Amino acid sequence: MNEKLNELKYLMGEVDDLSKAASILSWDQQANMPPGGAAARASQLGTLSRLAHEKFTDERVGRLLYELSKETRDLAYEDDTASLIRVLKRDYEKATRLPSTFVAELAEASGLGTTSWAQARAANNWDGFSDHLKRMIELKQREAEYLGYHDKMYDALLDTYEPDMKTRQVSEMFDTVRRELVPLVRAISEHADRVDDSVVHRPYEHARQWDLAQEALRAIGYDFERGRMDQVPHPFCTTFSNRDVRVTNRVLPNFFNSAFFGALHEGGHALYELGSPDRFERTGLAGGTSLSVHESQSRMWENLVGRSRAFWEFFFPKFAAKFPEHAADMDAEKMYRAVSKVQPSYIRVEADEVTYSLHVMLRFEAENMLVENKLSVNDLPAWWDEAMSSYLGVTPPDVAHGALQDVHWSLGYYGYFPTYSLGTFFSAQLFDKAREQLGDLDEQFARGEFAPLRAWLTENIYQHARKYTLNEIATRVTGEPLQTRSYIAYLKKKYSEIYGL
Amino acid sequence: MNEKLNELKYLMGEVDDLSKAASILSWDQQANMPPGGAAARASQLGTLSRLAHEKFTDERVGRLLYELSKETRDLAYEDDTASLIRVLKRDYEKATRLPSTFVAELAEASGLGTTSWAQARAANNWDGFSDHLKRMIELKQREAEYLGYHDKMYDALLDTYEPDMKTRQVSEMFDTVRRELVPLVRAISEHADRVDDSVVHRPYEHARQWDLAQEALRAIGYDFERGRMDQVPHPFCTTFSNRDVRVTNRVLPNFFNSAFFGALHEGGHALYELGSPDRFERTGLAGGTSLSVHESQSRMWENLVGRSRAFWEFFFPKFAAKFPEHAADMDAEKMYRAVSKVQPSYIRVEADEVTYSLHVMLRFEAENMLVENKLSVNDLPAWWDEAMSSYLGVTPPDVAHGALQDVHWSLGYYGYFPTYSLGTFFSAQLFDKAREQLGDLDEQFARGEFAPLRAWLTENIYQHARKYTLNEIATRVTGEPLQTRSYIAYLKKKYSEIYGL
Repeated sequence: MNEKLNELKYLMGEVDDLSKAASILSWDQQANMPPGGAAARASQLGTLSRLAHEKFTDERVGRLLYELSKETRDLAYEDDTASLIRVLKRDYEKATRLPSTFVAELAEASGLGTTSWAQARAANNWDGFSDHLKRMIELKQREAEYLGYHDKMYDALLDTYEPDMKTRQVSEMFDTVRRELVPLVRAISEHADRVDDSVVHRPYEHARQWDLAQEALRAIGYDFERGRMDQVPHPFCTTFSNRDVRVTNRVLPNFFNSAFFGALHEGGHALYELGSPDRFERTGLAGGTSLSVHESQSRMWENLVGRSRAFWEFFFPKFAAKFPEHAADMDAEKMYRAVSKVQPSYIRVEADEVTYSLHVMLRFEAENMLVENKLSVNDLPAWWDEAMSSYLGVTPPDVAHGALQDVHWSLGYYGYFPTYSLGTFFSAQLFDKAREQLGDLDEQFARGEFAPLRAWLTENIYQHARKYTLNEIATRVTGEPLQTRSYIAYLKKKYSEIYGL
Repeated sequence: MNEKLNELKYLMGEVDDLSKAASILSWDQQANMPPGGAAARASQLGTLSRLAHEKFTDERVGRLLYELSKETRDLAYEDDTASLIRVLKRDYEKATRLPSTFVAELAEASGLGTTSWAQARAANNWDGFSDHLKRMIELKQREAEYLGYHDKMYDALLDTYEPDMKTRQVSEMFDTVRRELVPLVRAISEHADRVDDSVVHRPYEHARQWDLAQEALRAIGYDFERGRMDQVPHPFCTTFSNRDVRVTNRVLPNFFNSAFFGALHEGGHALYELGSPDRFERTGLAGGTSLSVHESQSRMWENLVGRSRAFWEFFFPKFAAKFPEHAADMDAEKMYRAVSKVQPSYIRVEADEVTYSLHVMLRFEAENMLVENKLSVNDLPAWWDEAMSSYLGVTPPDVAHGALQDVHWSLGYYGYFPTYSLGTFFSAQLFDKAREQLGDLDEQFARGEFAPLRAWLTENIYQHARKYTLNEIATRVTGEPLQTRSYIAYLKKKYSEIYGL
């Protein structure tokens, strides 16, 4: 077995080096590259991705996984080697189920789609995008057939981003959450004037915003010896190894929240990747286990920590030292309320923590109906406006602010949106457990102590890297699969108090 | 033929993408990477280099080159396809002549050597490095046998960096130049007080130095839409395509020349790479043709342009606007003299344009004697001090400032040093021709007009990319192979005038 395992690890190391090299090229493309570099970069990235894919889907890898899978049958589920084989086998099967002609077809459609989407959005014209969307949905239906599913066709697409998650479980959770959130949003909207967030919309100097965002990252334990922060148009976090995990950020001159909570959000992703154990490096088992679990970490640091009263008791003096001109008429409590303001709007990426999931649910429903041919592409904009009005009480002024707002569908990302909310639900479920086991987190946060929470996350989440699925890890840590009870309770408690409901 | 040519180009495109990806990772390593990233980066770079090498030395590539070489026999020497096959065949033969076990042995020794060298230099102790150097020389002797040579063993090593250049030609040129330079340096040293360069040793604010270096780059025509400048410990220029060529730089707080002439030097390399024609991209024929020709470009912009009286007539007002506190007691003429100060010293990288080649010659002689076993490693430091005293009139205070000063030998770079001087000779030879064909270059420079010189270099150097060797291109452009006449005349004229000799 050892010889085969070593060979597998050698091959996976090569694949990992190629994939990480591609990540470095992508990061550079967004953070540094001069405009002239675009064409060559596309072919460099194309070659690296193709070689990584070819090497991973090589028949030899399949044979090794098949044989090792038999030979490791008696090992415990949580054993490192058993987990490595199990997770790689799942990846391998997904990677080899799609015929390469189909992958090429999809890549081409995706490449064309982004342009068609950008033009349609700029022209505020659904018809310019609908032909592409129809084609994309057909392709996704074919993809689901290639990948296979037992219950809902959407299961196959969801599984790409969230292994083993089922459409039915998501539907049930979303139904429950929606029943609670829609009335909560309505009640808050009726008392919108009870929170003044004008402070976050004042002019903030660029360089000082950047410094403060770095200070916040340092405070939560992000290590600049193992990462850095750079400016990009659309922020993200990217991993080159568990000792080089970089965050990116964007500064808006008149909106404080963008750079500050952006840093905490990407910092949450980064802490997870930095916590991946050394022994999994270059094996394919390193990093975060799924999009939802990743999002649980970013949302936790952004919202459950960063938008907590205790955090602002600790951080307000730092804010005041950096921006005395804005702190003069504020205090920690006012700042906490300002950054927690709820404001129903048309645009998902601008949504606060109460309304955010409603945006996601609407997309999940649309995606399901579209792939099951229960909603036509032509009818989507009208359905969208109707759903927005019923969930959030607002109607988009036009399709550019409605069904055309996100890039995801043009790229072929179907089944991706739900992970944003599943991660948010999970962040609250985890946080309840952390609070139960760590005592008064608020007191710790108010003193600027985040090491206990980090240690708890290392023990319960980070150290497992890609070993377990979302439901598995939820059960291991909290004794039950993913649930929405914690999330609903958190929102109700926090916002009833803030808005005096 | 077309089918084979297309296949070859496809394969070379893949190799080029991998090599460029490695360049991007190296650039990031030096310009951005947090300390934690080092170990993973080494294996990522190792994998990319190995795959590029494997793909380039594939038997299929050899067969295609062999067949295409026969089929293109009747094409003109300067034909694109004929040149592509000729240059790739030369690269292929070099790359396949060394057994892979030997390459691994060399790589390991080189990896260990740098550490041993750094420790020995820090401890100022030759014995700590001499065992490694002996081993390295044995390896280089074996390498020369693998590569083959007709006359001198050193030819094989030199050819790695400067194709087709012969040791005898270099020796003859160096003898001629030394005969002229040694008395010139002596005469200058006797009148050292005739040039006051105290202005360049004053404190210069970092940010303004950076801005001025960028302004100088823009002035000579470096396009920031196709490149950028970043800070690194040891500056270099790197190419990701002919539309993304990046320079790097270093700012010293109390030495103006470092960042300013560093920018012009790397900018000269960059203009060459940016001028490589589109049709050669991703074929292996793109870029600069050799280290010497590359150095002719960097040295030309750094010294023949940047250290000219005419350049400072144009640039002094910009310097004065950026650093009024240092310009108050200066003018263009004083600045021209200050940046041209000659000062014999122990350290090659700090040498001025008159003494620089003497440092190089000494290394060239040492390398030749070492590989021919005519000088022992143990005797090298004493020989070095003797040579320094006779060429430059100075004796290093210790071995760290003597034979231990450069990293090159620890890495196995033997045959590399001469290219610094060959490039410098060629820069003067080219410049004479440019002056002959373009009229009064000084008048153009004094007006800030560098486009005519750039156009001339594009026509005569850049457009040929890797087609021709140094002697071939010298003959095409100036009617004779590389010569030292122009270089000697340039130094004598400029420095006799400055020092009133």
